[in-house]
Amino acid sequence: MSRKLLMHVGPVMIDDDVLLAGVKDNSGFASPEFVTSMKNALNGLKYVMNAEYYQPFIMPGSGTMGMESVTSLLKKDDKILIVSSGVFGDRWKEIFSRYDVKYKLLRAEPGKAIPEDQVLDELSREKYRMVTVTQVETSTGVLYPVKSLVKKIRDRVDLIVVDAVASASAEELMVQDWGIDVCLTGSQKAIATPPGAALMVLSPKAVENIREDSISGYYTDLSKWINVMKNFQSGKSGYYTTLPVHTVFSLEKSFELIKNETMENRIKRHTLVSGIIGAGLNGMDMKIMAEKGFASHTVTAMMLDGLDMNTFLNKCLKSNVEMGTGIVPEYAGKYIRIGHMGNVNANDAISTVSVIEKTLNEMGKKVPSGVEAAQEYFMHQ
Amino acid sequence: MSRKLLMHVGPVMIDDDVLLAGVKDNSGFASPEFVTSMKNALNGLKYVMNAEYYQPFIMPGSGTMGMESVTSLLKKDDKILIVSSGVFGDRWKEIFSRYDVKYKLLRAEPGKAIPEDQVLDELSREKYRMVTVTQVETSTGVLYPVKSLVKKIRDRVDLIVVDAVASASAEELMVQDWGIDVCLTGSQKAIATPPGAALMVLSPKAVENIREDSISGYYTDLSKWINVMKNFQSGKSGYYTTLPVHTVFSLEKSFELIKNETMENRIKRHTLVSGIIGAGLNGMDMKIMAEKGFASHTVTAMMLDGLDMNTFLNKCLKSNVEMGTGIVPEYAGKYIRIGHMGNVNANDAISTVSVIEKTLNEMGKKVPSGVEAAQEYFMHQ
Amino acid sequence: MSRKLLMHVGPVMIDDDVLLAGVKDNSGFASPEFVTSMKNALNGLKYVMNAEYYQPFIMPGSGTMGMESVTSLLKKDDKILIVSSGVFGDRWKEIFSRYDVKYKLLRAEPGKAIPEDQVLDELSREKYRMVTVTQVETSTGVLYPVKSLVKKIRDRVDLIVVDAVASASAEELMVQDWGIDVCLTGSQKAIATPPGAALMVLSPKAVENIREDSISGYYTDLSKWINVMKNFQSGKSGYYTTLPVHTVFSLEKSFELIKNETMENRIKRHTLVSGIIGAGLNGMDMKIMAEKGFASHTVTAMMLDGLDMNTFLNKCLKSNVEMGTGIVPEYAGKYIRIGHMGNVNANDAISTVSVIEKTLNEMGKKVPSGVEAAQEYFMHQ
Amino acid sequence: MSRKLLMHVGPVMIDDDVLLAGVKDNSGFASPEFVTSMKNALNGLKYVMNAEYYQPFIMPGSGTMGMESVTSLLKKDDKILIVSSGVFGDRWKEIFSRYDVKYKLLRAEPGKAIPEDQVLDELSREKYRMVTVTQVETSTGVLYPVKSLVKKIRDRVDLIVVDAVASASAEELMVQDWGIDVCLTGSQKAIATPPGAALMVLSPKAVENIREDSISGYYTDLSKWINVMKNFQSGKSGYYTTLPVHTVFSLEKSFELIKNETMENRIKRHTLVSGIIGAGLNGMDMKIMAEKGFASHTVTAMMLDGLDMNTFLNKCLKSNVEMGTGIVPEYAGKYIRIGHMGNVNANDAISTVSVIEKTLNEMGKKVPSGVEAAQEYFMHQ
Repeated sequence: MSRKLLMHVGPVMIDDDVLLAGVKDNSGFASPEFVTSMKNALNGLKYVMNAEYYQPFIMPGSGTMGMESVTSLLKKDDKILIVSSGVFGDRWKEIFSRYDVKYKLLRAEPGKAIPEDQVLDELSREKYRMVTVTQVETSTGVLYPVKSLVKKIRDRVDLIVVDAVASASAEELMVQDWGIDVCLTGSQKAIATPPGAALMVLSPKAVENIREDSISGYYTDLSKWINVMKNFQSGKSGYYTTLPVHTVFSLEKSFELIKNETMENRIKRHTLVSGIIGAGLNGMDMKIMAEKGFASHTVTAMMLDGLDMNTFLNKCLKSNVEMGTGIVPEYAGKYIRIGHMGNVNANDAISTVSVIEKTLNEMGKKVPSGVEAAQEYFMHQ
Repeated sequence: MSRKLLMHVGPVMIDDDVLLAGVKDNSGFASPEFVTSMKNALNGLKYVMNAEYYQPFIMPGSGTMGMESVTSLLKKDDKILIVSSGVFGDRWKEIFSRYDVKYKLLRAEPGKAIPEDQVLDELSREKYRMVTVTQVETSTGVLYPVKSLVKKIRDRVDLIVVDAVASASAEELMVQDWGIDVCLTGSQKAIATPPGAALMVLSPKAVENIREDSISGYYTDLSKWINVMKNFQSGKSGYYTTLPVHTVFSLEKSFELIKNETMENRIKRHTLVSGIIGAGLNGMDMKIMAEKGFASHTVTAMMLDGLDMNTFLNKCLKSNVEMGTGIVPEYAGKYIRIGHMGNVNANDAISTVSVIEKTLNEMGKKVPSGVEAAQEYFMHQ
Repeated sequence: MSRKLLMHVGPVMIDDDVLLAGVKDNSGFASPEFVTSMKNALNGLKYVMNAEYYQPFIMPGSGTMGMESVTSLLKKDDKILIVSSGVFGDRWKEIFSRYDVKYKLLRAEPGKAIPEDQVLDELSREKYRMVTVTQVETSTGVLYPVKSLVKKIRDRVDLIVVDAVASASAEELMVQDWGIDVCLTGSQKAIATPPGAALMVLSPKAVENIREDSISGYYTDLSKWINVMKNFQSGKSGYYTTLPVHTVFSLEKSFELIKNETMENRIKRHTLVSGIIGAGLNGMDMKIMAEKGFASHTVTAMMLDGLDMNTFLNKCLKSNVEMGTGIVPEYAGKYIRIGHMGNVNANDAISTVSVIEKTLNEMGKKVPSGVEAAQEYFMHQ
Repeated sequence: MSRKLLMHVGPVMIDDDVLLAGVKDNSGFASPEFVTSMKNALNGLKYVMNAEYYQPFIMPGSGTMGMESVTSLLKKDDKILIVSSGVFGDRWKEIFSRYDVKYKLLRAEPGKAIPEDQVLDELSREKYRMVTVTQVETSTGVLYPVKSLVKKIRDRVDLIVVDAVASASAEELMVQDWGIDVCLTGSQKAIATPPGAALMVLSPKAVENIREDSISGYYTDLSKWINVMKNFQSGKSGYYTTLPVHTVFSLEKSFELIKNETMENRIKRHTLVSGIIGAGLNGMDMKIMAEKGFASHTVTAMMLDGLDMNTFLNKCLKSNVEMGTGIVPEYAGKYIRIGHMGNVNANDAISTVSVIEKTLNEMGKKVPSGVEAAQEYFMHQ
């Protein structure tokens, strides 16, 4: 029996058509069908990012490769302000610590988000070249109010970078309208494609800021990658290092499915699914890590109230629901993360609540009915 | 009709079972089946590299990501000697030029290899920390006599790095026996898996030389990746940045097929295929770029004798054989590259010669029969 | 979004590995890999049927083709007693009405089964050559107590034929121990493979009764098919008409998965799933067609209590659960059929109850909580 | 290494996209996506048959099931004239021998076709209700001049049945224009889909001749199947026995590819491929069974001139070319059959000739160069 539900944080459940689109036994990096597919995928990325006039990038690697590639916009001693809600916000610090730049980390407690005013304060105190912020912090399930923050800081900093790894295509994200400079994600999260592609869009201003003499390494050097992307956009082949050809075929199909569903319906679906799960957890009196108003629609962190995490997760897996470990250092091992991104629907949410409820009971924690609360929520949508 | 032959340099023709192994709609980065697959793939990599006691790495990205990750063994001002036969040998220079290290490039003319004595001379003149050499130079089809070189220089330099991107699993390569420190390849070449994974093995000495305070960036930092690899080797999950989960499932299957075929038979097969193609080209009096004795068994570069490259390649593609452009700067546009790696056999070689012969004739170049010469060679094996 | 649950009566939800096993682009009816696969599938069929010493058959077509092929055991004017619980029991009558044989139909009311004594009475009144009985009647969800019946009639009739189309691999079925002569099924039901193969096992006595001069047509002539089967069993190729090669590759994989799961666990799983659905329906006070004690573990027929069937099914489909129409003539259009065979688990059962509950409410029928009752059942297993 | 060439008579080499179209894990016999697919496939069948106003049928089973279903147009004692060029022409006799009808068999020697005048003579001597003729006789590779025959006999017989199992979509076949009443084929031959579907088109007159009280059995009863087909044609679901759902998804894709290629180009391609093979065999002085002017473009039977058939075929298979045994009783074991249908191209033809040439030489038969002759032919197209 392989029909487990992968309620995890990426890779997530993937539509078979997306996987099968990558089954091509004779397509090379310069094959005409790949050139077409790459062009379509680049356009699809702009659609998902709501960034019609931006420069899209699809590069080989994980989302972190995309994060590190912003070094292509930096020179020695540049200052970066990092707005972090957890492990993946902190990752910016770890990246920049390998380079000759200066950074300051504003880090919220798990479940909370740095208040926008604190960011503003910091920006008035010091001149920063770049601000980074994580839309959905995968380690805590916190959704940062990016739209509002960008509005407030747009005039105070050169470059605004949004990590939308765990949010793009599932949360509201108007990259161009809101005025974000760099927005990046990975193929394996809400876009529901296998991992292997770092996805980014850059505003015209960000593109101007790409420097050949930047601090970046070779592999992450956007001054080289940009020409490859422009080639594909104009229907020609291009090469810097080998692109993840088969992942791009899958991406193209995924973007096609997203367009068919429409971004509006896709966001509604993620809202419904996270709503059902949230209602179920509330019905069982289980605590959600994210503060009220800051819960994402893609990841829910559930506190375990003293139960052993690995036992809990293994029991759920035996009931065919796979979820993620809790990793934020302050509460490592004391919570689980439920991913609900990509090819996920209300039925999966009900099943997930059902298995959590069953497992809690099995582990001796008597809780009020979760599925009944979840079903109530579901029936009133 | 999609049954074209992809006689290209990577991605190459891929066995359907390898592609289908990657069709998994609910496997996450920590799923038990992925942990098993990653462990198997790491072991498979050691088998292919003939490096039983080495530390294997499978990381997200292209082969170039693997190349750049050797910066994890370097500190500021280290000296590297680069032995290059063409574009991909030169790539080491481009990589190192982004870092605070010193390098010297020994570059052969297209079709030739730097004489081993020249390398020895250079090493006696100057103390180098690292030597890099490319086993098969994809841009020219030259096979470097790595075994012999390593024997001669083993005692003269700390770290010997071999780029086996276009040779691993198709050319003789006894990493451990020969005493190579770092040997790297990509998933999409002779291993015949989709692109997306950088593959490396490091000798115990190389592992000792990994430094936390190396010059490397974040994404390529082997001091972090090594723990992830060790976790998977011991049957546990691990995370640094998201691994290319589905590509690893494919890799695992590919390594399984390679073991079933045996490395010995696999090398014989590549020798047969390249032999047929070579015989066919010789039969047609078409010049091969690689000097006698230096022709690889994975890539053959054929000079076009004045014919237009794009016209030639497009006509061949219409006859269902896709080959690569000639890219080495000195002869760019004046030759083509025939890739014959991975899931390729004698029938494909005969067909390729047939289509080349047909196309030459169509473009007005009358040549002696290529297929007859190829068939003669084939029948006498 | 394609992740609907196919809670239907066949084809059912299929494991991806089963489908992918059929993706073979160059396997012919005499290819060595097909010979092996056919041999394995024939053995797998014997395993599923618990019929080690029986002769297995895999033939191209639907289950009905298998039913009709029992004419290969009949001669003109033979008498058959048909024990029917609904549409598919009645199908025997429709088949035999095309031939020069005599038959009598014992037909139960929907939801009921013909009492065994009634069968015994009929057999004492008249000499019959063959009795047919349907283990699970797909049109009503009734499970016939085959074991008990066979025990009682074994000495009173030459040939006992059991239609296990909707039960094999999900209900207890000891073909050899119970003494059944012919037991047949289709690939697309509980075995969870695509449709296209008629599957049968024949006892040694049944094999002796295959006649070259039977009343059968050409395509269904077991006197010809048996040699083909024996060939494959002994590792040789065979041909009568073209076998469903790719479906057989899938069948082989499905039988492998069944063996891995074990028949015992597979039957337990179907019992759990049908138990959850039954508990959910009971919790909502919805009537199940099958009488107490006669409910199958593969199909549940739910009376609609006056609601419009098509509206109900379409609404459920929009909620990503597809179920079947009610077709038994007496209640056509007045009930639905929930299939729960093959690659189905408890999560699917909970989701199905959830969607039925939601739909009933949407259509104005207020019912007590179904998911709560289903969850209660689930948690006490 | 799985990249063998399947130069066999069905199943043949199949486009991956056709196989992957059948990978659907949750589509039932009444699922909306299947209804659409079946409708498209029925239309595609009419396109391939050039039979716009005919009634198409797609039924579960092999081509033989389609053959036997013409009994739905017959009543007791009807007379049928069978025009046979070999094993599959003779099959009509075997089918009709199971029914209460009268038939006469006109059987040509292997490699020859019954002269049209002989058919005319027979028709003037006796009144026949039906004439059957095989367009391409798979056992001998003979192409019958169907167009010319139909023209001559159209007014002399009620029903003309053409077995196009090994020809439809590869040979010229204007079913409607030529005035054929019943034309049938299978999914696994030139249409290049997995086996599992019997395909037929019936003229309006043939449809009128379908009788409820025909001699047919149950499974092959077109009076029942026709309603199912009409349902699907009008966008509704239908059921008689379970259709081969996944094979239909593949068929739909195959018909789409055929339309994209156009029938004209497809016939040209088969002409080219058979031309190359024929030229190669002629070049090697190997005898082709079919008389000059009667060689099909889908199957070529090559006499073995005393070589052992199984040894020959096994050696070719080791060289990755799989071909078929010679089965016509007069020459069983003395020739091989080369199938060249479906997803096959010139490269495959060259490779096949190459392997045959190599194998002949290995077995001690010195022949002139086959590939050179094949290449000559190829280059002059």
